[in-house]
Parts: sequence; C-alpha cells; structure tokens
Amino acid sequence: MNQIYANDADFNRSDPRAVRAAIRAGKITGETSGLGSNYVQGNLAILPADLAMDFLRFCQRNPKPCPLVGVSETGDPMLPTLGNDIDIRTDIPSYNVYRNGELTETIPDVNDLWRDDYVAFIIGCSFSFEQALVNEGVPLQHWDRNLTVSMYITDVMTKPSGPFRGGTVVSMRPMTAINAIRSVEITSRFPHTHGSPIHLGDPAQIGINDISKPDWGDAQEIPDNQIPVFWACGVTPQNAIRMAKPEICITHTPGSMLITDLPAHGNV
Amino acid sequence: MNQIYANDADFNRSDPRAVRAAIRAGKITGETSGLGSNYVQGNLAILPADLAMDFLRFCQRNPKPCPLVGVSETGDPMLPTLGNDIDIRTDIPSYNVYRNGELTETIPDVNDLWRDDYVAFIIGCSFSFEQALVNEGVPLQHWDRNLTVSMYITDVMTKPSGPFRGGTVVSMRPMTAINAIRSVEITSRFPHTHGSPIHLGDPAQIGINDISKPDWGDAQEIPDNQIPVFWACGVTPQNAIRMAKPEICITHTPGSMLITDLPAHGNV
Repeated sequence: MNQIYANDADFNRSDPRAVRAAIRAGKITGETSGLGSNYVQGNLAILPADLAMDFLRFCQRNPKPCPLVGVSETGDPMLPTLGNDIDIRTDIPSYNVYRNGELTETIPDVNDLWRDDYVAFIIGCSFSFEQALVNEGVPLQHWDRNLTVSMYITDVMTKPSGPFRGGTVVSMRPMTAINAIRSVEITSRFPHTHGSPIHLGDPAQIGINDISKPDWGDAQEIPDNQIPVFWACGVTPQNAIRMAKPEICITHTPGSMLITDLPAHGNV
Repeated sequence: MNQIYANDADFNRSDPRAVRAAIRAGKITGETSGLGSNYVQGNLAILPADLAMDFLRFCQRNPKPCPLVGVSETGDPMLPTLGNDIDIRTDIPSYNVYRNGELTETIPDVNDLWRDDYVAFIIGCSFSFEQALVNEGVPLQHWDRNLTVSMYITDVMTKPSGPFRGGTVVSMRPMTAINAIRSVEITSRFPHTHGSPIHLGDPAQIGINDISKPDWGDAQEIPDNQIPVFWACGVTPQNAIRMAKPEICITHTPGSMLITDLPAHGNV
C-alpha cells in the first residue's frame, strides 16, 4: 500500500478533485475537516425554485452570515462555477433532508430525490478564515482544546426576504486585544467566509446573556486578558430556512461539506 | 432666496433624502454627480421576474463587474434595504426604457410602466471609490481634465447565467506604480463599488489593442512614468442585458443614478 496516503484511503487528501471522487465513490462518509485544506469548503442548501429567489435576496441582504459562493442553474446538479465536474447530488459525504422544517432523513446521496425545480446554494464557512488566523499566528482556543466553536443566537436581526428571517447566529473566539485587532485585519480580506467580526467585547450588547452557555457547540474559557470576538455564522441561514418550513430542503450533514476548487486564500 | 443652496434648488445637496425628494418632485432631471456625495450611488436595472433569477445568479458569479447593493421584492417598487422611502419608480432623475434590446424611450418616471412582475436591481458604481482614491491623495487624470473615464470591452469573459454573458467592460485610470499599489489597497476595501482592479499594465493581455481608442468615454494620456490600471465596470451588466434582448428592461439614464442612504465609505 502506498504510505503517502493516510487513513487507508487511496487518494490525495489535499487535491479537491481526488477528495470529491473518493466521496462520490463512498470512501468518505464523515467530516471533511482536514481534506482539501487549501480550498474553500462550503455549506449546502438545496431549495425548490419557488423559494430560490427569496433565498438569493436573503443572501444578498445578509452577506456576513450568508456569503454565497455559488448557485446552480435551476434543475442542474452541476456547479461549474465552483470546480471541475462537481455533482451536488453525490459529492458531499452525507446529506440531511428536512421536510416542513423537520429532519426526516440522513442519506449518503440525493440521486433519488433530485428534481427539475431544485436550486443548490453553496455558502462559505468559517473553516478557511480559521486556517488563515492560525497561519498568521492567532491561536484559537477551540482548535487547541479540540472543541466545537461556541455559537449563539443574537438579537442582531437579519434583513428579511420572503419567509426567510430571524436573528443572526454568531461564532465566538476569545482573544487578546491585539489578536482581536489582527483578526479584524485578516478576516476582512475574506468576505466569502463571513468577513470581519460583527461584534467584540460585551456579549449583552448583541443579546447574549450568558457567554458560558452557547446555543450550539462547546463553551470556551475567557481569560481575564482576553475578550470575546463574534463572527456571523453559517447557522444563520440554516436557522432561517428551518423556520421558513419549506416543503423540502436538503443540506449537508454538519461537518460534511462541499470541497470546491476555489483557493481558500485567493481573490474572491 | 437662501444662498446656502446652490443652483436655484431649495434642498440640501448633501442629504440623500432631500436629494431624492427633489428628484421625485421633478426639480432634478439631470446627472447626480456631486449630490449626496458621501452616500453610495447605484446603477439601476429593472427586469421582469422570469429573468430576475438568472440575473441574480449572473451578479453572484461576477461580483467585480456586477456588485449588487440591493434587490427589490418582486412587484414592489420600494427599496427599504437601501434607505428611507425609496420609490424606484420616481427617485431617479431620468430612465431609459429598452424593448428587445433597443432604447425606445427616455422618461422622467416609470409610474405608468410599473408591473407586478418587475424586480429592481441596484448595482454599485465607481463614483464612491474614485472619491476614496482622491481623498487618499491618488490623483485621477479624468477628474483633473474633466473627462469621462475611458472604458473598454475586454476578452475577460464573464461567467454566464441564462441569457446573460459577454466580455467584461473595464474603466482605465493611468497612475504611477506606487499609486497603482496604493489604489489596490484602497479599492479592495470596497467590494460593493467594483473592488480591486482586475488588471494593470499591458492592455493587450486583456484584449485591448489600442489604449488610445476607448469603446466608451474619453481617451486619456498615459505618461511614460505611469501605467494603466483597469477596474471592472458597471457597463458590463448593461451590455449583458442589452445582448440578452429582454422583452423590456428599464435602466437609469447614464449619469442619473440612485442615491441611497448607505454611507459610501462604510462597512458593507
């Protein structure tokens, strides 16, 4: 066996095409963290066309929580603007199917569910900017402690569009003041992965009453010499979709994202 | 007569609400340059709903030439995400109506033409970033010589969506190398007004064969110590729409733009 490949999987883990081929072949069914790490990973939402224009407008109006990196043609499962031969029906390891806002199935592909009126939306996620922060010497507590980042619902309301609305969900990273400043500089360069923070300091100012009790993810320590820094989070559109209760919506299973051919730190 | 108001017009020229009220009242029928100058000005395209989703996708795929700053609800002429009481039927000084790709009318309002299936798109323009460059000490030859900026069609193809496609149109500003570098830094902060340049230096590399013959606007001198710097231009979506020959499309008359309540140099 070729020892340059890890985890018994016979593919190049840094090549997005090879990773997607392995996913399509059923060799990867779990999380995509660490795969194709120099390329943009994206969250998925598939909606029927009658809701698609409202959702496009929702993303246009809320670019920090909903940074749209790609949209399929109506009924076409291919995503040529995001990479070579991406078939959104098969190229994500695991899919969640929501009917009228309720999770009904978790399945490895959506070949049997695909319809002529579906539109696939790919939304940037924080993975790329976290890598950029670490590369620039900004430590992330949840990386060092192997936690899921803390996420909170806030009272910073999104701009509504059709049935899509609700509070902005944020992810929180504790850091020193100088690293908070540096992280604003770094993340402002990546509008497609949520951009710069939406708040720093006092959590109560954005409607977070107890920073030790995140709504999603794990709690983090906030040392005396650090402040919490808050970025808009991709759970925001997921929440907005769930509350809109579409007849059907298909998403990635959390952690199992689409790996695109777009360079993570390239021009957007 | 109150001498603090210029040009016989009894309104505050720096207040976008006052300027829009004067436009709506028919007191301003020409260009908006110099009005509400600290606020984002936008280009207008109104399209029927059956083309709107393709056009939204076109803008998502081509953010530098088509930076979308606002989209109306289908059939609703108000633009609450861009400011207070903006009625797109009346709040632009002059409108061009294109039918099947041909200009058929230039009219002061579109009250009589408005339909339940119209969607209004507002696209950022270069006015705001030019002000930012001048404020930062980067001189602009076309400002100093009172010319219209030089614009060229290039062979840098847009990513198509539905009937919308074609080459990217660029505007060109000659500058010294150090000002070219500075202008990349400055304009990269404003993705909603075309962002950073798409090219600098050799015009032939983007399919411009004679820099002295712009396709639109005036020719500019390129002194020996300067290079041409090229930004994606809002004429790109106008061209794409014209070539798509929609049954009807309504735009602003060139130079007569929408003045929004969004601060020109604020967070986007």
